[in-house]
Amino acid sequence: MIIVMQENAPKQHALAVVHHVQELGLKPVLLEGTERNVIAVIGDERIMDMHVINSLDGVEKVMPVLAPFKLASKEHAKTKTAITVAPGVVVGGTQIAVMAGNCAVESLGTTLATAKAVQAAGAIIQRGGAFKPRSSPYSFQGLGEEGLLVLREAKKQTGMPIITEILDPRHVELVAEHADILQVGTRNMQNFELLRELGKVKKPVLLKRGMSATIEEFLMSAEYILASGNANVILCERGIRTYETATRNTLDISAIPVLKKMTHLPVIVDPSHAAGKRDYVGALAKAAIAAGADGLLLDVHPEPPKSLVDPDQALNFEQFTVLMVDIKKIAEAVGRTL
Amino acid sequence: MIIVMQENAPKQHALAVVHHVQELGLKPVLLEGTERNVIAVIGDERIMDMHVINSLDGVEKVMPVLAPFKLASKEHAKTKTAITVAPGVVVGGTQIAVMAGNCAVESLGTTLATAKAVQAAGAIIQRGGAFKPRSSPYSFQGLGEEGLLVLREAKKQTGMPIITEILDPRHVELVAEHADILQVGTRNMQNFELLRELGKVKKPVLLKRGMSATIEEFLMSAEYILASGNANVILCERGIRTYETATRNTLDISAIPVLKKMTHLPVIVDPSHAAGKRDYVGALAKAAIAAGADGLLLDVHPEPPKSLVDPDQALNFEQFTVLMVDIKKIAEAVGRTL
Amino acid sequence: MIIVMQENAPKQHALAVVHHVQELGLKPVLLEGTERNVIAVIGDERIMDMHVINSLDGVEKVMPVLAPFKLASKEHAKTKTAITVAPGVVVGGTQIAVMAGNCAVESLGTTLATAKAVQAAGAIIQRGGAFKPRSSPYSFQGLGEEGLLVLREAKKQTGMPIITEILDPRHVELVAEHADILQVGTRNMQNFELLRELGKVKKPVLLKRGMSATIEEFLMSAEYILASGNANVILCERGIRTYETATRNTLDISAIPVLKKMTHLPVIVDPSHAAGKRDYVGALAKAAIAAGADGLLLDVHPEPPKSLVDPDQALNFEQFTVLMVDIKKIAEAVGRTL
Amino acid sequence: MIIVMQENAPKQHALAVVHHVQELGLKPVLLEGTERNVIAVIGDERIMDMHVINSLDGVEKVMPVLAPFKLASKEHAKTKTAITVAPGVVVGGTQIAVMAGNCAVESLGTTLATAKAVQAAGAIIQRGGAFKPRSSPYSFQGLGEEGLLVLREAKKQTGMPIITEILDPRHVELVAEHADILQVGTRNMQNFELLRELGKVKKPVLLKRGMSATIEEFLMSAEYILASGNANVILCERGIRTYETATRNTLDISAIPVLKKMTHLPVIVDPSHAAGKRDYVGALAKAAIAAGADGLLLDVHPEPPKSLVDPDQALNFEQFTVLMVDIKKIAEAVGRTL
Repeated sequence: MIIVMQENAPKQHALAVVHHVQELGLKPVLLEGTERNVIAVIGDERIMDMHVINSLDGVEKVMPVLAPFKLASKEHAKTKTAITVAPGVVVGGTQIAVMAGNCAVESLGTTLATAKAVQAAGAIIQRGGAFKPRSSPYSFQGLGEEGLLVLREAKKQTGMPIITEILDPRHVELVAEHADILQVGTRNMQNFELLRELGKVKKPVLLKRGMSATIEEFLMSAEYILASGNANVILCERGIRTYETATRNTLDISAIPVLKKMTHLPVIVDPSHAAGKRDYVGALAKAAIAAGADGLLLDVHPEPPKSLVDPDQALNFEQFTVLMVDIKKIAEAVGRTL
Repeated sequence: MIIVMQENAPKQHALAVVHHVQELGLKPVLLEGTERNVIAVIGDERIMDMHVINSLDGVEKVMPVLAPFKLASKEHAKTKTAITVAPGVVVGGTQIAVMAGNCAVESLGTTLATAKAVQAAGAIIQRGGAFKPRSSPYSFQGLGEEGLLVLREAKKQTGMPIITEILDPRHVELVAEHADILQVGTRNMQNFELLRELGKVKKPVLLKRGMSATIEEFLMSAEYILASGNANVILCERGIRTYETATRNTLDISAIPVLKKMTHLPVIVDPSHAAGKRDYVGALAKAAIAAGADGLLLDVHPEPPKSLVDPDQALNFEQFTVLMVDIKKIAEAVGRTL
Repeated sequence: MIIVMQENAPKQHALAVVHHVQELGLKPVLLEGTERNVIAVIGDERIMDMHVINSLDGVEKVMPVLAPFKLASKEHAKTKTAITVAPGVVVGGTQIAVMAGNCAVESLGTTLATAKAVQAAGAIIQRGGAFKPRSSPYSFQGLGEEGLLVLREAKKQTGMPIITEILDPRHVELVAEHADILQVGTRNMQNFELLRELGKVKKPVLLKRGMSATIEEFLMSAEYILASGNANVILCERGIRTYETATRNTLDISAIPVLKKMTHLPVIVDPSHAAGKRDYVGALAKAAIAAGADGLLLDVHPEPPKSLVDPDQALNFEQFTVLMVDIKKIAEAVGRTL
Repeated sequence: MIIVMQENAPKQHALAVVHHVQELGLKPVLLEGTERNVIAVIGDERIMDMHVINSLDGVEKVMPVLAPFKLASKEHAKTKTAITVAPGVVVGGTQIAVMAGNCAVESLGTTLATAKAVQAAGAIIQRGGAFKPRSSPYSFQGLGEEGLLVLREAKKQTGMPIITEILDPRHVELVAEHADILQVGTRNMQNFELLRELGKVKKPVLLKRGMSATIEEFLMSAEYILASGNANVILCERGIRTYETATRNTLDISAIPVLKKMTHLPVIVDPSHAAGKRDYVGALAKAAIAAGADGLLLDVHPEPPKSLVDPDQALNFEQFTVLMVDIKKIAEAVGRTL
């Protein structure tokens, strides 16, 4: 940690900071500059609270040297983590993991038809929301537990593992009983009570980036789950909020190489929610794979206009099948398989 | 709702949209333009899902005419809502309601000293967090229930009502038993499970704007609480996330007149979290009152550098007392009292 | 254009709007709704100023139906525009056009070495800045005219056409004499005096998106050049400003499919300025081609740390050569050549 | 400057950085940490290019200690700068300087009527645009030189000094001949060729913040003018671009106290362009004065709906007069006069 003193701060302020650092068991080095004094801290600064330092007399700013997360960092695990979701179904390996299905579970008929169609085209995990976070209290809120049973029945017939969303710490046990991957949505990325509960579960958790979360905050939320005991975290970039309104969100494609540099965890992309419009999903899906993503989460529906949630971004079966052919080519161009 | 067809969409696509609107019991008007066709919908469009319309063949875009919230709107309640928190303590009346205290409850001594100091300077509600949402799992997470008891003891001695944060739907009953206002933080603005539970409580709820929420989304979250049965919602602007890093967040001062135009609910401002730096809190607090805010939420601590949470933004007692004198002058300049 | 009246606006306000629209020679349709009145305008609304309408008594909001640009739109030219920069050098055809070189021209030696290296690896246009916009007045500002002569000499030896930046309307004639493509940087996207001057030139113009410009504003700036008489405009996405600081800018990868839908003009991407860090340039370059970009603009330097401008984002010759092999594979996967 | 090495960087990389710093005549201090090595640089780091350092082998990140501007900093001038625009007309003194008038000059009649009305209400400088930057090439572009003559005639009759916009380095001489303050608009904040020309003029320059410029970039643009020889720079916050669309821009009210802390230059606010809607202008104007602004720039028009530019944000004479009474009260509450 680097502590910059104000230009006109008296020497005793700097000395008080030095003393404070020593009391924490770290080693301060006072650098008396021509323009202002700076204190460098040697040791694991993560035990210090930068806001406390920042509030000491005479301190102008505090600059951390280390990232605040540990278990999520490359320093903790030097090799890429691959997560086994079910026998033969791995996220973070050589194969691109495509998770596809209805945004919300509607009925067994729709779920099953979709599961079979996406499996035939190459998807290895079926998605479907039973509990849905909706921005309006007047919108369809999901089938709840009944939706989980529908997914389970579809799994029985197709053998595809299930990814489904979890909204409430009170539902963790129930959802973990049925699902193979528990998905935390963008609005809950900093629902720390929920993250802590998910740390107690053994099932993999797919954590979506908050729509205005920095990459560092994203990894800190992953750290919550890891630190609570669950090592199986999959990160998902799904678009961030910017001033641009041509798309629902702005897919932060750069997050893929940045995350690959900072963490050992697998990284997938949700082009459906990023685009918010069917026409743009394909281009974003292909870009994600070209940039190094380990997988995709895609909305597919037999008749998108009849989808109860987000109908404008779902692909129909034919569109999905055509896209998978294109994705396979890109995957091979970057040395992956589909 | 206005539905714009694509330039080259065949007439039958427009007719299918017309048919769809009629089936919903609304009245469509097809306008055949020189450049493209447009369908205007007459009736309460809020029963339609604009995403469904958007996904119909040939539709280019859908533009809602009405705001999606009802109970929070000025159309629902034409006069400003004033919320009585305790006998003689009102938010949304002529008096500016100042809520001040420690960001996190630390001990009875600190809480009590702070409560007395802020009360002497003119605050009417004491703040203090017992459950704290922290971006790092390694940071102090609050005293929990013990913190609530500390607040209660301080209330006993000072008579000041309590505002405290609620993070988890499982804690609603407990927190409502002790607190006079339940505060929903920025990270939980779209924690819909929590909002629904708060709708069942009779205590006032202070809802903070999500750090990247639009004003419309903010009001939709208020609508969740209102629609679930609790009419006592106080809105709180606390800064939004932008590219500027000189302050922790960017206080959206314009949100005050915009909200005043759109809703009957009271609007307060949290300049401490917006600024993130003590030096800027005063200017923002004064600006908020000048712009028409009904109150303020302020971090105050006897020794800010020793504060366990957000020490860099808390005011000490003297700074708070001086600021209250300034705020009183601004309040009077805009026809309010303190 | 759709004009929404305020809920409580008296009928005569709506009639005054109707009258105003008629006077402009357009056809108004008054729709009396259950919640509020709406006036739909039939005809080419682009002759109306929506701000004027917005300021009429009783108007709540105005929603345009048509995009405000014409010449840049797909409605103006249904087929994709391919721009011939030099004999056999086309931007917007099947071949991916790679433009590469030093961010700033430094010397003939460096320029020539770079031009030869990038040409050998498959680039078809050499980049190099003679006039440089620098955020600090104390930084190197470019070689000016001397830099143009250096580029010209390199062109003589390699045959590669030149792209270089133009900052000042007073330099248009000079730069157009030497360059094959005139580049407008992100800070000048709305320097309308400059855009107008570039409309009078016959050389192609590469227009970079402003760092906080919407896609619509971007196309309006292209419209300035087109409307001033120059039909040869190449669009360049180079990253937008968001709250995320892990990269210099956030590459808006979605802009590629969105622009492809809205305009006939070619679209290229500058991954070097988007990333701002060498390590991320390759992933972004590959993503751009996968998403459908027509070309790339890349910073390359024999010894990046010695580059006078933006040394942290330039690739060295070997990195560029390896990247071009990867790009070739992606290009082929999406049916293009390199 | 603090240079953080990568975790696994070999010692010789750190030593090479140390050597590089020494060669620049500065003093490096190598701090060998438990987690990674850090090099602190003692001396005036502003002679170093942080991008060069960033590109050296093994460097992870570079953190500047000093702000990159000098002449604009509080360290350069410890006392607040007050700028005399005309005899008795000062910006940056105790009196709040209100600049008001038509957004664009339309005719002598309108200009004169407006000048007289705003003067009667307490404005001390008249605004009016002769050269207008318009996002559409099809919009009214201003009267040009004729507009300057109109402003001059109004000045002759009222005695009020003139502020008007400058767009093109070729117009500097002409505009400086007629205007008392030359205004640089948000789109030209980084038009460095223009800034340099304005440095050669002796008239005050009002520099508007770029709509996505950081406060540091804003001050760097001021530095361009100062470093080119013109010490009379007035800063103007006018709203930044964010995701919120309820207002045209988001007024960054925090920029006022932040700028007051960082620079000695006067700071004014343009609430008209920030809000973009008449109804919100008053609240923002009052907030700006409460937060410590030295003045306001306001759009006023005898009949706003007939204004040729930005009619939806102009106040009419009565609204302006009423607002000035309110502003006077706020000014007095913060110890200023109007």
